[in-house]
Amino acid sequence: MTRTVVASASKEIVIGFDQPFCVIGERINPTGRKKLAAEMEAGNFETVKKDALEQVAAGATMLDVNAGVTAVNPNETEPPLLVQTMEIVQELVDVPLSIDSSVTAAIEAGLQVAKGRPLVNSVTGEEEKLEAILPLIKKYDVPVVAISNDETGISEDPDVRFAVARKIVERAADHGIPAHDIVVDPLVMPIGAMGTAGQQVFALLRRLREELKVNTTCGLSNISFGLPHRHGVNAAFIPMVIASGMTSAIMNPCRPQEMEMVRAANVLSGADANCMTWIKTYKDHVPSAAGAPQAASAAPAGEGAGSGGRRRGGREARRARG
Amino acid sequence: MTRTVVASASKEIVIGFDQPFCVIGERINPTGRKKLAAEMEAGNFETVKKDALEQVAAGATMLDVNAGVTAVNPNETEPPLLVQTMEIVQELVDVPLSIDSSVTAAIEAGLQVAKGRPLVNSVTGEEEKLEAILPLIKKYDVPVVAISNDETGISEDPDVRFAVARKIVERAADHGIPAHDIVVDPLVMPIGAMGTAGQQVFALLRRLREELKVNTTCGLSNISFGLPHRHGVNAAFIPMVIASGMTSAIMNPCRPQEMEMVRAANVLSGADANCMTWIKTYKDHVPSAAGAPQAASAAPAGEGAGSGGRRRGGREARRARG
Repeated sequence: MTRTVVASASKEIVIGFDQPFCVIGERINPTGRKKLAAEMEAGNFETVKKDALEQVAAGATMLDVNAGVTAVNPNETEPPLLVQTMEIVQELVDVPLSIDSSVTAAIEAGLQVAKGRPLVNSVTGEEEKLEAILPLIKKYDVPVVAISNDETGISEDPDVRFAVARKIVERAADHGIPAHDIVVDPLVMPIGAMGTAGQQVFALLRRLREELKVNTTCGLSNISFGLPHRHGVNAAFIPMVIASGMTSAIMNPCRPQEMEMVRAANVLSGADANCMTWIKTYKDHVPSAAGAPQAASAAPAGEGAGSGGRRRGGREARRARG
Repeated sequence: MTRTVVASASKEIVIGFDQPFCVIGERINPTGRKKLAAEMEAGNFETVKKDALEQVAAGATMLDVNAGVTAVNPNETEPPLLVQTMEIVQELVDVPLSIDSSVTAAIEAGLQVAKGRPLVNSVTGEEEKLEAILPLIKKYDVPVVAISNDETGISEDPDVRFAVARKIVERAADHGIPAHDIVVDPLVMPIGAMGTAGQQVFALLRRLREELKVNTTCGLSNISFGLPHRHGVNAAFIPMVIASGMTSAIMNPCRPQEMEMVRAANVLSGADANCMTWIKTYKDHVPSAAGAPQAASAAPAGEGAGSGGRRRGGREARRARG
């Protein structure tokens, strides 16, 4: 059984086919958030702190942290800013982090300060990326998100995307990295632009699970780009990808409709033992007059931090071997 | 490609793998609705009429009609009452009907007055049922729901349920009935009582589609029997069964949360061409302040307007035991 282990200072989380869906909170990311980018550049981390607390309270299993505030000289500016952001987040919340950067030096700087066992986001099938990132993954003994595009871009052919994923898994093996530490992102296209985007992803997820036996993730809200009432489309996409074998997603946990579908899909996939999380979360649920769902009054304590998570020895297990 | 054709007086609907999910409105059914049973016995069809109009307005593709008001002498009382109910419904709405009865004489009486091409609900793997119902299916050239239980009851073993479904398909073939006119109900158990109920159904649906190549249906709300906030569980179950290959369900179309997930899953499975129904339905959707979804402000023209979904059918309890 494929198990990808991530950890914070004190908690271990397993991403796996028989585990609750792993919700990777996407909000700490200045890309496309000009106000947040300006704040972070000015050394103001109030929004980062708020986003960290809110996402964990809403049920995030782990948090993605991105500090790409500028395209100007990121090799020098991004590493210290990512480190500072991660340290602030780790002070506040005890969930595993996903170190999100396109700058290799920032990823390595983040790996040096991460507590527990973080996820690296990401490597692609591009030669330059493979050679830059995979040695770090091996050195720090951490899992990595593998995005299935390469020098030729993002193929519209799912067979090509599968082949890229396989290449990354094989190349990782050459570096001594096991397949269970590769979390493949099959790439989700907007359904409004490509009517087959859903079917493509469902078929790819099945192959990734059955043939490559890897865990999977995606940037979930891509699917609804350009459509009205995007949250409704996202909400239905979640149970469909879970039914197809996806085990995590980078998404906004502060949306009650989407998180309700994560919790219900966990019940239906058998990952919420005795429906305990569902019952705790919704036992006092009152449907609205129109029959539409309301927000959950409160997430159960500690849910996001991983029910089933257990204490772990700290950073030693992850620390660089070389 | 498997195509099950049903029709009303003037409209033909295809149930199939590449078609929008077929929503069979469940409300016209006195089982567990004492007030409705008493009304129908007294010749009062006001609730039947209201349920017919509301379900079609809410987006039902077809309507199930059941007139089983009493266990006393149903062979004599049910046929004329079912005929009367069907005639009233057919006067009001132009959607295909599902003739729902455990009384063979009632089914044949219904077949004699049904306009278009109705669905018969149902046959099982029981010898007596097979010999009573299949000749009618052949004689009237209509499709039938095949429930995968037999004399031994409902097996908890999905392999046994699959074998019963295959037996019905084979027996139907002996009668000259093609597999595309068999709509298999794999039987949905409550997830609260059996934690593997979801996984069982998903695996069965895949086999029914890939090996038997049949369309499928179920009593959808069974899955959530006994849990709090059942509509949330039902809502997630819909995209999961659609992703697993289910092509129709007997359900309450007057629940906006469930119907929203049907529409979104149609988008994601590629069955809502150019997302037209989604865009028409939700183009003016305004999310509520808390981020929770609201009911659609208006249903598209083809689905009617306004979906008042406050009442809960008592049939849910019956289906859970069925």
